[in-house]
Amino acid sequence: MANIFDSLPTYPEASALTSFSHNRLERASEHRTDDCAIKALKDRSARVFAFCDGKLLLKHENTVVDPLFAPYELTDLDPDVDEAVLLGHGADGAPRLAISVNINADDPASPFRLTDGRSLIREYDLAPELLGEFAQAASLIRWNADHRFCGRCGGRMESRSGGYKRVCTTCEHAIFPRMDPVVIMLTIDVAGDRCLLGRALHFMPGLYSCLAGFVEPGETLEDAVRRETAEEAGVKIGRVRYHASQPWPMPHQMMVAFYAEAVTTEITIDRDEMDDCRWFTRDELRTLLASRHGEAEMFAPPSGAVAHRLMRDWLDRT
Amino acid sequence: MANIFDSLPTYPEASALTSFSHNRLERASEHRTDDCAIKALKDRSARVFAFCDGKLLLKHENTVVDPLFAPYELTDLDPDVDEAVLLGHGADGAPRLAISVNINADDPASPFRLTDGRSLIREYDLAPELLGEFAQAASLIRWNADHRFCGRCGGRMESRSGGYKRVCTTCEHAIFPRMDPVVIMLTIDVAGDRCLLGRALHFMPGLYSCLAGFVEPGETLEDAVRRETAEEAGVKIGRVRYHASQPWPMPHQMMVAFYAEAVTTEITIDRDEMDDCRWFTRDELRTLLASRHGEAEMFAPPSGAVAHRLMRDWLDRT
Repeated sequence: MANIFDSLPTYPEASALTSFSHNRLERASEHRTDDCAIKALKDRSARVFAFCDGKLLLKHENTVVDPLFAPYELTDLDPDVDEAVLLGHGADGAPRLAISVNINADDPASPFRLTDGRSLIREYDLAPELLGEFAQAASLIRWNADHRFCGRCGGRMESRSGGYKRVCTTCEHAIFPRMDPVVIMLTIDVAGDRCLLGRALHFMPGLYSCLAGFVEPGETLEDAVRRETAEEAGVKIGRVRYHASQPWPMPHQMMVAFYAEAVTTEITIDRDEMDDCRWFTRDELRTLLASRHGEAEMFAPPSGAVAHRLMRDWLDRT
Repeated sequence: MANIFDSLPTYPEASALTSFSHNRLERASEHRTDDCAIKALKDRSARVFAFCDGKLLLKHENTVVDPLFAPYELTDLDPDVDEAVLLGHGADGAPRLAISVNINADDPASPFRLTDGRSLIREYDLAPELLGEFAQAASLIRWNADHRFCGRCGGRMESRSGGYKRVCTTCEHAIFPRMDPVVIMLTIDVAGDRCLLGRALHFMPGLYSCLAGFVEPGETLEDAVRRETAEEAGVKIGRVRYHASQPWPMPHQMMVAFYAEAVTTEITIDRDEMDDCRWFTRDELRTLLASRHGEAEMFAPPSGAVAHRLMRDWLDRT
C-alpha cells in the first residue's frame, strides 16, 4: 500500500521555512478562562509584547533590541489591562501575553521604538520563535481593537477567554478572532519553463512577486487561485497544487500558497490593481532572487516570504 | 524537467467534488460599484436568493422547490433593498443577488419554506451550481447582518460595493467579508492501516467524522492540524499533506482538508469537546461509509462533505 505522505516534496515542510511560522507557545486553547490573562499578568515570570497605536514597542538601547516586557516594566506605560491577551505559555511554563499601552513613543528621549511586522523582518534580527509569537500577538491586538462595539446592536463589547472572544454587554452576541484567507500563487506555463510575476500598484519600486488575493465567500481555494489570476493577469489556470501556508499578521491574514498551471500565455493586466505583470524564465527568476533591494533594478520578496518560498522551491525542486 | 502538476492525485481536483464548490458565477469583483446591487435589482433578468431571519426562503409548491426569486416577486416580501448583495452574473449575463426579506414564513398558509445549509444538502435535490451560489449568498447575508455597527466607534455602518464592503457613517472605518479558515484532517497511523475518527459533543448520534478546528492567529495550517489533533485526541502528528478545500457557509467557514501522519497511537480524549474518538481499520471505514443515517448505528458524513472526501479518497487512492 502506497504511503500517501511519501510523495510530499520535502521535510521540514515549506510552511516551516517562512517567517512568522515558528510559534512554539503552548496555547492550551481549550483551557482559556475569562480571567486567565489578568491572572497571568500577576505571574512574575510572564513576558509581554506591548503595542502602542497598533505598533510593536521595542526596548531599544544601543545594540540591544528586546520586544518582551516584564509585568513590572509596564506599570508606567498606562497598559489596557482589561484588554490583555494571553498568547500561551513557553516550554518553561512562563506566560506570554500581549497588551496595549498608551505612551508617547515618538518622543526622541524615549528608550522605545515602534515597529510593524514588515520592518520587523526587514530591519531586526529577531529570533524566529519571537517573530512567530509576534504574529499571534499583533493579530489579536488588532482584532480586539477593531471590535470594541457590537456589530449587531452597537453595544459595548468586553474581552473574554484571555482575548480570544468578545461578548456584547447588551445583546450577548459573541465573536471570535478572524483570520483572512489569502491565496498566493506562482503560475507556471505549460512547458514548465516560465513563471508569472507581477507588481501590484502599492508595491515598492522594483519589487516583483507572486499574484495574490483574498478568498471570497463561496469559492474553493483552487477557484480563488483561478479567479485572481484571471482578474489580475488575464491568464487562464488549469491544475492547482498546494505548496505552503504562512500566518501574515498585517493585520491577520492566512496566506495559502499554490502552484498554478497556466493554460494560456497572453497577459491582460488589470490596470486598476497592477503596475506590471510578465513571464520570467528560470534564469531570469534566478537573477531576481539573487538581487538585493537597493542594489538592483528588480528584486524579489525576502526569503521568509511565502512568495519567495514558491519561487525558490520551483527552481530547486523541479 | 519534472512537471510539478503531474504528481497531483487526480483531476478533477478533490475540492471540485464537494458540496458548495460549484459556484460558476462571474463575480467581476474588480468592478463592484457602490450602487451595483441596487442597479442589478432593476434588471428584469435578475434572480435573487431571499433570506428571512438568516434562513433561505424556498418557493415550495407541490413537488417544485425553487430558491430563486424574480425582482417583482420580492415586492410584497418587504425586502431590505439597501442591504442587497450582488453575487455576480450568470453565463447569460443575468445578475444574481441575495437579499433579506421580512415576512412570517412560519404561517402554515405560506407558499414558502425556510431552510439552512445543512438541510439544503440533506433534504433538497438542488443543482450543484445553485448550492455553490447559495454558499456565497448565505455567507454574505450573515456577514452584513453581523456588522450593522462599527466595531471601532459603534457608529452605523452602510453597505458598499454591492455588499462586499461596509463603511462606518461616523469614522469611515471600512471592513470586508470574513471567511474563517478551519482545518479538517484525516489522521493516518504510521503503518497506513488505520485512520482516526471522532464524535464532537454536538454531533448527531452515530455520526463519526474527521477531527477539525478553527485556525488560530499566528500558526500555519499544518501547525493547526497538529495542535487540534493533540488537543482533541492526544495524538502527535508528523507530516501533513493538503488534500482539498471547501466553502462551508454555516456561517462562513473555509474548510481546508489535510491528511495527517500520526507518530503516536494512544488516544486521550478531550471530554470538554469530544464524545468519542477511535481508530478505524480500512474495512471498518468502508462499512462506515456504506452505512446510512437512520439505518445503521454508526455512519459517516454525506458524500458532499470534505470529511467524506478525505475518507473515500484514502480508501480508493492509497
